[in-house]
Amino acid sequence: MFFQILEDLSPISLDEYNTNILTLGIITIEELENCYTTFGFSELTVSECKNNTRQIHGAIEIYEDYHFSILTGMERKHIIRLMDRIAIFIKENLFLIVTIEDTNNSIQNDLFESLKHQNLSKTSLERLIYSFLERFIYDNYKILEKIEIEISSHEDKINDNRLSRDFNHEITRIQKKLLLLDNYYEQLAVLGEELEENAIDIFKEENLRYFKLFTERVTRLSTHTRMLKDYLVHVKDSYHAQLDYNLNNIMKMFTVVTTIFLPLTLIVGWYGMNFSYMPELSWKYGYLFVIILSILVAIICILYFKKKKFL
Amino acid sequence: MFFQILEDLSPISLDEYNTNILTLGIITIEELENCYTTFGFSELTVSECKNNTRQIHGAIEIYEDYHFSILTGMERKHIIRLMDRIAIFIKENLFLIVTIEDTNNSIQNDLFESLKHQNLSKTSLERLIYSFLERFIYDNYKILEKIEIEISSHEDKINDNRLSRDFNHEITRIQKKLLLLDNYYEQLAVLGEELEENAIDIFKEENLRYFKLFTERVTRLSTHTRMLKDYLVHVKDSYHAQLDYNLNNIMKMFTVVTTIFLPLTLIVGWYGMNFSYMPELSWKYGYLFVIILSILVAIICILYFKKKKFL
Amino acid sequence: MFFQILEDLSPISLDEYNTNILTLGIITIEELENCYTTFGFSELTVSECKNNTRQIHGAIEIYEDYHFSILTGMERKHIIRLMDRIAIFIKENLFLIVTIEDTNNSIQNDLFESLKHQNLSKTSLERLIYSFLERFIYDNYKILEKIEIEISSHEDKINDNRLSRDFNHEITRIQKKLLLLDNYYEQLAVLGEELEENAIDIFKEENLRYFKLFTERVTRLSTHTRMLKDYLVHVKDSYHAQLDYNLNNIMKMFTVVTTIFLPLTLIVGWYGMNFSYMPELSWKYGYLFVIILSILVAIICILYFKKKKFL
Amino acid sequence: MFFQILEDLSPISLDEYNTNILTLGIITIEELENCYTTFGFSELTVSECKNNTRQIHGAIEIYEDYHFSILTGMERKHIIRLMDRIAIFIKENLFLIVTIEDTNNSIQNDLFESLKHQNLSKTSLERLIYSFLERFIYDNYKILEKIEIEISSHEDKINDNRLSRDFNHEITRIQKKLLLLDNYYEQLAVLGEELEENAIDIFKEENLRYFKLFTERVTRLSTHTRMLKDYLVHVKDSYHAQLDYNLNNIMKMFTVVTTIFLPLTLIVGWYGMNFSYMPELSWKYGYLFVIILSILVAIICILYFKKKKFL
Amino acid sequence: MFFQILEDLSPISLDEYNTNILTLGIITIEELENCYTTFGFSELTVSECKNNTRQIHGAIEIYEDYHFSILTGMERKHIIRLMDRIAIFIKENLFLIVTIEDTNNSIQNDLFESLKHQNLSKTSLERLIYSFLERFIYDNYKILEKIEIEISSHEDKINDNRLSRDFNHEITRIQKKLLLLDNYYEQLAVLGEELEENAIDIFKEENLRYFKLFTERVTRLSTHTRMLKDYLVHVKDSYHAQLDYNLNNIMKMFTVVTTIFLPLTLIVGWYGMNFSYMPELSWKYGYLFVIILSILVAIICILYFKKKKFL
Ligand SMILES: [Mg+2]
Ligand SMILES: [Mg+2]
Ligand SMILES: [Mg+2]
Ligand SMILES: [Mg+2]
Ligand SMILES: [Mg+2]
Ligand SMILES: [Mg+2]
Ligand SMILES: [Mg+2]
Ligand SMILES: [Mg+2]
Ligand SMILES: [Mg+2]
Ligand SMILES: [Mg+2]
Ligand SMILES: [Mg+2]
Ligand SMILES: [Mg+2]
Ligand SMILES: [Mg+2]
Ligand SMILES: [Mg+2]
Ligand SMILES: [Mg+2]
Ligand SMILES: [Mg+2]
Ligand SMILES: [Mg+2]
Ligand SMILES: [Mg+2]
Ligand SMILES: [Mg+2]
Ligand SMILES: [Mg+2]
Ligand SMILES: [Mg+2]
Ligand SMILES: [Mg+2]
Ligand SMILES: [Mg+2]
Ligand SMILES: [Mg+2]
Ligand SMILES: [Mg+2]
Ligand SMILES: [Mg+2]
Ligand SMILES: [Mg+2]
Ligand SMILES: [Mg+2]
Ligand SMILES: [Mg+2]
Ligand SMILES: [Mg+2]
Repeated sequence: MFFQILEDLSPISLDEYNTNILTLGIITIEELENCYTTFGFSELTVSECKNNTRQIHGAIEIYEDYHFSILTGMERKHIIRLMDRIAIFIKENLFLIVTIEDTNNSIQNDLFESLKHQNLSKTSLERLIYSFLERFIYDNYKILEKIEIEISSHEDKINDNRLSRDFNHEITRIQKKLLLLDNYYEQLAVLGEELEENAIDIFKEENLRYFKLFTERVTRLSTHTRMLKDYLVHVKDSYHAQLDYNLNNIMKMFTVVTTIFLPLTLIVGWYGMNFSYMPELSWKYGYLFVIILSILVAIICILYFKKKKFL
Repeated sequence: MFFQILEDLSPISLDEYNTNILTLGIITIEELENCYTTFGFSELTVSECKNNTRQIHGAIEIYEDYHFSILTGMERKHIIRLMDRIAIFIKENLFLIVTIEDTNNSIQNDLFESLKHQNLSKTSLERLIYSFLERFIYDNYKILEKIEIEISSHEDKINDNRLSRDFNHEITRIQKKLLLLDNYYEQLAVLGEELEENAIDIFKEENLRYFKLFTERVTRLSTHTRMLKDYLVHVKDSYHAQLDYNLNNIMKMFTVVTTIFLPLTLIVGWYGMNFSYMPELSWKYGYLFVIILSILVAIICILYFKKKKFL
Repeated sequence: MFFQILEDLSPISLDEYNTNILTLGIITIEELENCYTTFGFSELTVSECKNNTRQIHGAIEIYEDYHFSILTGMERKHIIRLMDRIAIFIKENLFLIVTIEDTNNSIQNDLFESLKHQNLSKTSLERLIYSFLERFIYDNYKILEKIEIEISSHEDKINDNRLSRDFNHEITRIQKKLLLLDNYYEQLAVLGEELEENAIDIFKEENLRYFKLFTERVTRLSTHTRMLKDYLVHVKDSYHAQLDYNLNNIMKMFTVVTTIFLPLTLIVGWYGMNFSYMPELSWKYGYLFVIILSILVAIICILYFKKKKFL
Repeated sequence: MFFQILEDLSPISLDEYNTNILTLGIITIEELENCYTTFGFSELTVSECKNNTRQIHGAIEIYEDYHFSILTGMERKHIIRLMDRIAIFIKENLFLIVTIEDTNNSIQNDLFESLKHQNLSKTSLERLIYSFLERFIYDNYKILEKIEIEISSHEDKINDNRLSRDFNHEITRIQKKLLLLDNYYEQLAVLGEELEENAIDIFKEENLRYFKLFTERVTRLSTHTRMLKDYLVHVKDSYHAQLDYNLNNIMKMFTVVTTIFLPLTLIVGWYGMNFSYMPELSWKYGYLFVIILSILVAIICILYFKKKKFL
Repeated sequence: MFFQILEDLSPISLDEYNTNILTLGIITIEELENCYTTFGFSELTVSECKNNTRQIHGAIEIYEDYHFSILTGMERKHIIRLMDRIAIFIKENLFLIVTIEDTNNSIQNDLFESLKHQNLSKTSLERLIYSFLERFIYDNYKILEKIEIEISSHEDKINDNRLSRDFNHEITRIQKKLLLLDNYYEQLAVLGEELEENAIDIFKEENLRYFKLFTERVTRLSTHTRMLKDYLVHVKDSYHAQLDYNLNNIMKMFTVVTTIFLPLTLIVGWYGMNFSYMPELSWKYGYLFVIILSILVAIICILYFKKKKFL
């Protein structure tokens, strides 16, 4: 779909495309293949859109009279995999979005939502792009907050010594997610800075501040992501230390148990010997003596470990 | 509340606002909503003030003729959570503070305290801002010193081997606090540098040094925070090593105890066997022999472990 | 082999070399030794080509009127060792490739493949170089993806607690590979930037963007490599934590087993003592009492460990 | 004390101070409070000198016509705490040192020592400052060398497996010291660079190289400090690995001891059973058989562990 | 020894020194003390040459009309300690080498070797310096390769589980060596960059590329050194993980052994009890029953551990 933006949004066909009127497009790869020559886009950009190998890293490239970029957005519900893959072409008076992957149609919704928040009779190419990109990262703060809560709940589990079998797995999963996010924001920041630079001179100087605003917001998301990375490292360290602390406690307890029983076992073994001459065995108070001795040994061991802070 | 600053501080109503006279304001979000159009502030800034999602990271943005920033200060008593959230607007001849969150009225106190330390008849916009921000971070050195003492007391605990159950938890809590502080000072430094840059040219060149002074102070706080982070990492490493050292000692002790009792238990088991022909059992000195053998075995074990530095 | 590029590729002998016509060469070291004086290359560059010591790090050097560089490519199949060593000389109207090591002739294939993708009648020195270098790193994304899958499969193994004897070895092998790749891309990026700088002024300004495009692609590969490095560190940490977690479990199980059997062994040892006066031994229900006592002790131990989360 | 430097050092009173003659001062805080207005210093600087909170981080500030800095030096003997706190004021033709803390009068000695090494008739403000600062860090290399020897001796202790109880404590103490030193040199480097910048234009261009020389020396000290930090991290890692290595050896030994005694104890327990029908018990060679069996079991265990490299 | 370089190398005495003719000198500290005033060198430089405290870090300083630097080279055979300490003075038309420490005369050999590789009639000050410095680092690649092989052999040892007592010690030794090398190359790079900057304008612009070439080579050595540092960290991590893996295996084996013998020992202890009424004891198949029970218990334990992957 292509739209001319004069007073309002008016749908046009490709033939009606006029380089002097601000035009917005949202098309599929198949449509791109049919029309890229009309706009003078390089065949290379089309093949990059079709190439699915470069999963995370999009492209951010400048050609003679247009910007080309491939971005991968985050699906709100499932943030482990990056989804919503789009390519954008920016040329004088043209902002063209190619939806490479978007099963739930969220890109188109984002675009129309962003259009609602601007006065279309006074809008500009820069404002159009800014509003769309802004929408693209709109609720990312909530995503980061969700991750923060997740990490925090893991911290609480460690502090309560509830270390489940999956703990380790969970931590690595979050780290992977933060790694993806960090790279994702870095990529968006590079895009923002490139647009701000206005190397091929298709933007108005006074509107470049929109791109600066976008870069600043992405940078704040990026800083927050790195803080979460650091926080997670601290939680992980705490987990490792907790495992070591627990091991020490297990071994202390084990040592206490063994050290109490070993001498007792020796004593009872001793009086199980079959020597013909063992005076204690026939002594009247022999059995009583062994009972008292055993109790004494046990008490001494316990007192010793209490002193040693093992108990 | 709005004040004109001529010779002294004189309260004015919004209608009396004169763009040619240095004006100071401290208002609530509700008041901001009523007056932002008077000052020509964007609706976006108001909605950012009301949006509570972005907890830590404030905003530092430049608009056409004013600076806008959201800052989160530290409550003196409870430094784990950042509190005292404010927004500031800086325009030619105007310094406007919006208190977003401040249950104990400390922001207003800070502001009036800062006014006391300057000669109002000779003050300037830059001096006003500087004095307020300076107050905002006034006793942060004490906060850092308190953290340093806390870390140091943890270090002492490790050296005395008093490793409590909560140790791990405490360390992570301090690390989180330092992470927050580090980001907090970084944010303030960015604000200071932005004001120093004077991009929209509303400050006098000769007064920019106030902002430089502020940036330098924040940077020193930031450097100190990072030193504390490094110190804490060292203390944490020491904790981990102490756990390992203790485990070695526990296992050494355990090995000693077991190695002494195992041969003794074998000996007494040996003479508990019921073979019809076991000459030692009927030997006159059999029992004495076992007593001496047991003592010998115990002594040899102990000497061996002494030599091996296990005891 | 030398080729003049006018309308098409025409093979020439060294004598026909004309500095005014775009020339492409692909030769061996032996051929280089015979012809380097013709092109005015320094003897030093020849000896560097012959010197096999500097395995990974090639050379990137600028001489008075030519660029000289030694590159080491990756063989598609076996990516542990870098292979395909080449030297390139770039002079006005000349692009000369020296194949130092290339057993499977892949360099020459790459070169001719790259020529197919350009219109030779409109090509330029810059385009020639770009197309060749682009080919040189063409399928590197697949290599990185293969490594990512490998790391990911190791992560799965940890999560399923299938820790084989070779795990450790595998991790170090991948780390080494990523270390090589990181340096390799850094080197290519340096080359790209140097060509873009055009210090000796042999390229046309308008064609420098080819080198920028190359640098950007290499940088994306480099960023991806570093992400994989971080990912692998996370997986390694997870492996270490898993080992510690397993050790805790082993020791818990061990403690449980020992703590159940030690008191039982004491009890049976107790009634194996040979005192003449032990009333329980001749008590009618003595044996029954020991049976019940043993079962009780075992149950209490098991309940205790259940409560302590050891079982 | 104030001195005019013309041909030689001549003590003057404050009243004789002449802004056209090179003047050197070394005074206490009390004296500063009496004279700061004479020199036009801000009241803020005096209060900073009196404020003892900012222990490590001094101040490095530029005012309209003077530099102000607070430095904390190292006492030669006791290098754990930074001591010798001074403030310096640098104005055209004036170098003023305020001794804030200096129990052993070392600052004054340093100053006079530094004066001895320059030709006073040809000296300059820059030379005066340089010579004093140079003295201030004069024997810091010896301090670093002492730390290096200390770390090295700890390394030797690890290699000889002499791991004392205080090891951990010692390491953290040295790390803290290096952290302080690192920050200390960073501070001095910032001062040196600031003086070199000559922002308020009170130094002669041709003499700025003195400050560059100072900065270079401080940077070398700083680089050496960081190398020591890295070295200490290596030694610490080695300590951790040694603890783990020792634990493995303890557990190997323990496993060997237990595995030898457990089957023997089973054997002797076996023939301690009281079954009425146990043919071995009445067998003529029963006892001999058990003796030989026990020896065989012990030998087989030992051979097994030899093969497994446990012994 | 001093030499004038016109057509060839001609030895001269100090009196014949002519500032207009390219002069090369190689002298001892004692000779320097006699002649430094002739060249106008500062007394400070002489005292720095004599001062032996600053072992690793040489000096790199610029004076009014000469460069001064102290360098410490690596002896080919023994690379743990840096040796071959020299000072160099570079002035217009003068390159002066002072050999501070060089027991095997290698510096002088290097110098004459470097002279052989240049056409003395066409040489220049820059070429002279470059050739000498190039010689100074000539075979450093071999040194790095030797270290790489050493690390690699340690990696193999870990993979084969041949962890000797000295492993730890060896790793720290190599890390120390790489730390020294890293600093060493950084120093040389600083020297190269300083010469390239030509701050005191004593070099010809067109010859500055010699210094650039030197800096580039040193940087490549430095990059390689850092790669080796990273590699060694990976190998060290692998060693730590191997220790933990081994400990797990030891404890698994130990748990298996104990868990098999404990129930057996309980059984035989059980039938060693002396109750007057124990029906099994007089049961005809009692002994057979215990034999079968013991075998069953052992088999069940072994099957259980096989299932748990302990065996
Ligand atoms: Mg990133
Ligand atoms: Mg950051
Ligand atoms: Mg950094
Ligand atoms: Mg951070
Ligand atoms: Mg951190
Ligand atoms: Mg651990
Ligand atoms: Mg931050
Ligand atoms: Mg930070
Ligand atoms: Mg810092
Ligand atoms: Mg620091
Ligand atoms: Mg550190
Ligand atoms: Mg450990
Ligand atoms: Mg790298
Ligand atoms: Mg590299
Ligand atoms: Mg990156
Ligand atoms: Mg990254
Ligand atoms: Mg990371
Ligand atoms: Mg571990
Ligand atoms: Mg610092
Ligand atoms: Mg530092
Ligand atoms: Mg350094
Ligand atoms: Mg270093
Ligand atoms: Mg290191
Ligand atoms: Mg260094
Ligand atoms: Mg370094
Ligand atoms: Mg590097
Ligand atoms: Mg770096
Ligand atoms: Mg590297
Ligand atoms: Mg690495
Ligand atoms: Mg370990």
